Amino acid sequence: MLSWRGGHRVFAPKAVRWYSRPAAYVLPHTIKQLLASSPEAEIDATLTGFVRSIRKQKHVAFADISDGSTPFPLQAVIESDKFEPDIVHRITSGSNLKLTGKLVKSSGEGQEWDFNVAEMEVLGTCDPAAYPIQKKTHTHEHLRANAHLRPRTDETSAMLRTRALLNRSICDYFDSEQFIQVHPPIITSSDTEGAGETFRVNPASEPPELDSTGSDGSALEAKSEFFGAPAYLSVSAQLHLEALSHSLSRVYTLAPSFRAERSQTNRHLAEFWMLEAELQLSTPSLGPLLDVVEGLLRSVFDTYTKSTDAVVRFPESKAARHALETEWKRMTYTHALEELNHAHDQGVFIKPTGKGKGKDIVPRPVWGQGLRSEHERYLARDNPVFVTDYPADIKPFYMRLNDESSTPPTVACFDLLLPGLGELVGGSVREERLDHLDATLKQRGMDADELAWYRDLRLYGGGPHAGFGLGFERLVSFVTGLENVRECIAFPRAFGKMKV
Amino acid sequence: MLSWRGGHRVFAPKAVRWYSRPAAYVLPHTIKQLLASSPEAEIDATLTGFVRSIRKQKHVAFADISDGSTPFPLQAVIESDKFEPDIVHRITSGSNLKLTGKLVKSSGEGQEWDFNVAEMEVLGTCDPAAYPIQKKTHTHEHLRANAHLRPRTDETSAMLRTRALLNRSICDYFDSEQFIQVHPPIITSSDTEGAGETFRVNPASEPPELDSTGSDGSALEAKSEFFGAPAYLSVSAQLHLEALSHSLSRVYTLAPSFRAERSQTNRHLAEFWMLEAELQLSTPSLGPLLDVVEGLLRSVFDTYTKSTDAVVRFPESKAARHALETEWKRMTYTHALEELNHAHDQGVFIKPTGKGKGKDIVPRPVWGQGLRSEHERYLARDNPVFVTDYPADIKPFYMRLNDESSTPPTVACFDLLLPGLGELVGGSVREERLDHLDATLKQRGMDADELAWYRDLRLYGGGPHAGFGLGFERLVSFVTGLENVRECIAFPRAFGKMKV
Repeated sequence: MLSWRGGHRVFAPKAVRWYSRPAAYVLPHTIKQLLASSPEAEIDATLTGFVRSIRKQKHVAFADISDGSTPFPLQAVIESDKFEPDIVHRITSGSNLKLTGKLVKSSGEGQEWDFNVAEMEVLGTCDPAAYPIQKKTHTHEHLRANAHLRPRTDETSAMLRTRALLNRSICDYFDSEQFIQVHPPIITSSDTEGAGETFRVNPASEPPELDSTGSDGSALEAKSEFFGAPAYLSVSAQLHLEALSHSLSRVYTLAPSFRAERSQTNRHLAEFWMLEAELQLSTPSLGPLLDVVEGLLRSVFDTYTKSTDAVVRFPESKAARHALETEWKRMTYTHALEELNHAHDQGVFIKPTGKGKGKDIVPRPVWGQGLRSEHERYLARDNPVFVTDYPADIKPFYMRLNDESSTPPTVACFDLLLPGLGELVGGSVREERLDHLDATLKQRGMDADELAWYRDLRLYGGGPHAGFGLGFERLVSFVTGLENVRECIAFPRAFGKMKV
Repeated sequence: MLSWRGGHRVFAPKAVRWYSRPAAYVLPHTIKQLLASSPEAEIDATLTGFVRSIRKQKHVAFADISDGSTPFPLQAVIESDKFEPDIVHRITSGSNLKLTGKLVKSSGEGQEWDFNVAEMEVLGTCDPAAYPIQKKTHTHEHLRANAHLRPRTDETSAMLRTRALLNRSICDYFDSEQFIQVHPPIITSSDTEGAGETFRVNPASEPPELDSTGSDGSALEAKSEFFGAPAYLSVSAQLHLEALSHSLSRVYTLAPSFRAERSQTNRHLAEFWMLEAELQLSTPSLGPLLDVVEGLLRSVFDTYTKSTDAVVRFPESKAARHALETEWKRMTYTHALEELNHAHDQGVFIKPTGKGKGKDIVPRPVWGQGLRSEHERYLARDNPVFVTDYPADIKPFYMRLNDESSTPPTVACFDLLLPGLGELVGGSVREERLDHLDATLKQRGMDADELAWYRDLRLYGGGPHAGFGLGFERLVSFVTGLENVRECIAFPRAFGKMKV
């Protein structure tokens, strides 16, 4: 029980399979499992874990042990007299222990259970004077500079468990709605949006046979590109997801995405994870898409708020619970501008004091331009809000032109704005009509030949479909309340920054 | 029922959350759900899907419809006289339909259910003369050249569902063993293995401010690298996973990995998905690691063989079932060489006819060299086999030196060889002893400073830990029997190849 069951198993030849879920656990219990496994029985258990902190008294030492499976450490009670003085001496903050003992009701304050240590081994020592992760609070800058040790802090380990929980919850929702998880390419030949800076990919070393390809210049030139064409890191999987949805109907992916942005803000990473989904529709309308996005996020928030595993370390964040308890509004861009102008009329954006007192702190919105972040925050001040049907001119080529005869034209798209965060999700119905798509490409001076395969999707059985993208680190930021996305990913990559 | 439930939902302010799992489906049923939903009730249903093929008779047309949710299409029965002749004319192979009707017991051979069409709309036409995906069998080369349409073939759509099933099954197993799913970086500053070609990453465009950074030459130089240091695409997440396991104890990831290999074989991709896991141990032994790998794969194979969704399209592949029903052997490299030499003695590798008759077709194995693929195939001829404890000199620096005093030294590592496939998984106990690690780095002429953060993991509470990597496309290849890994991923990336 609760120990390695390793070694060489013996099977009868052609035996029936021995493995079937629910799993017969191969590994020893984690602290989380131990706490959930009828601890009243006072069974002997063996744990490994890291010392978060230790208090040594004359005859007893109290060590807070974490193995990453729970948000709070388990207090190990070590009766020092039972052990060699040397071994107790070697236990310091950051050291790595193997403990055998019993879970018992704690007599101390603040925790329900203690772990009474019977046997003990120091698997790895840690010089407390040199250890960069002390118990005291560190700045985020210091921790980012020690990204390889940062997961040992309570905040980062809780963030990592939150990521896993959100990831799982997303997959559960999409499973329930019959979406198929797919893996689109990271290396692509195109820049999906025509916007944003991209990263170029080349082999680190020259091909050894470059000199020996002979005198054929064209062959030489073709060889100079590893893939036969310039290669970039994907900024979005959308176009490839559209291709897959034209077979599988409903697809999604959670995968890395890349932008070579040189801005250094709390909201930007050069490498981030993006959730993207595409689905075939029976009519080209936004309704089902918005229903999926709202259904997905309500499901994820519900799972998150119910999970004590991940949440308890972020008690200050009420964002997910609040979003669950409110109505999610849906309004057109044009309606949003009316509401914003009304707010300007009401003096909402007037500076109350100081220089510029009595004047609007932001200009009034102008139809045909994007929304300012101040305006987005106002629209989502109390409720999540889908802003739909933006002007066509400020949106990418692939969004579906609305059929209305009004000019200037709008497209069937949305941004989901969340209280305190701003935009979390963006998506649209895609332009499935080849004549409309070609007209837009021509109008924007884009090369239809480069998008030949994308046009094919319309040529061969193209039908109405829609999709969206969601920045995973922004979702993590929203539910945890960690404001900087660099605290929402294990090893952040941003302009000028790659410590580990 | 079975129709869009879109539109604007109304909530009472502060209403209780309306969403909780099991999901109230937001989207209409797929064919898979329809077939599972008491079809005897003859409920009206609306479906969208693609026409795989159509037979038109005088008064009735039979269209095989697929929406990607099932391996076999659903036969739609269209009584032509009920519809405008034009609409029936426009239904061709590849077109995209919206159908409303009833599921009824089929009177035909080969299928249980028909879909009797009452209403019909052609969402997208498809010119059968131009359509590159005809019903007839295409070569894999032709389909790869049409990678954007290839998912519409039965083989590729079944492969994609298989990927999703394996992905899910992997997550289920790791959840059950308390591993936490993490997302290590794709862009890294190092080449993990010191082996294999890597891809270099640079911004596609020069920084606009490059000329204005002033006269400070060093600042200019630093700016010339986007991340402040040369950046590469990850060849393995292992080192970062080790850092994460030193907090979370058990971690795994399924993420893209990259090798700039110029070989064009059916086993190599430049971009592939890799499953990697790391776990903390209480003793530095291979046993628990092998137990996890075997437990994982038995669980995955069990799920795969029980799933009719994905499997039925690959009935020729008995590999997963066979692996479930056999013992998985464990033998050391040294023992494997003894077995191979014995086989050579027995004439197993002797060429029976033709030139070189009577001589070994492969040289005998030599201790200290890697295993030839012919030898690997022989070792795994009947059973999966873990070959362990390879010579240290032919393995990467991070593998743990065995404590035995024998020379030459071996390391605590394994390759898992599968019948008909060869190597699927490789892994090892990691060298947690800093003095041993430093000695190996020195011996190999590697720069310990570049691995400073990796050394820190040993300095601060390092303990025994182990991990492995598994090529996801090779797993797909094994269970489906698709021999070329380019048929095991939606959009393959290989030397000289990037069509879509």
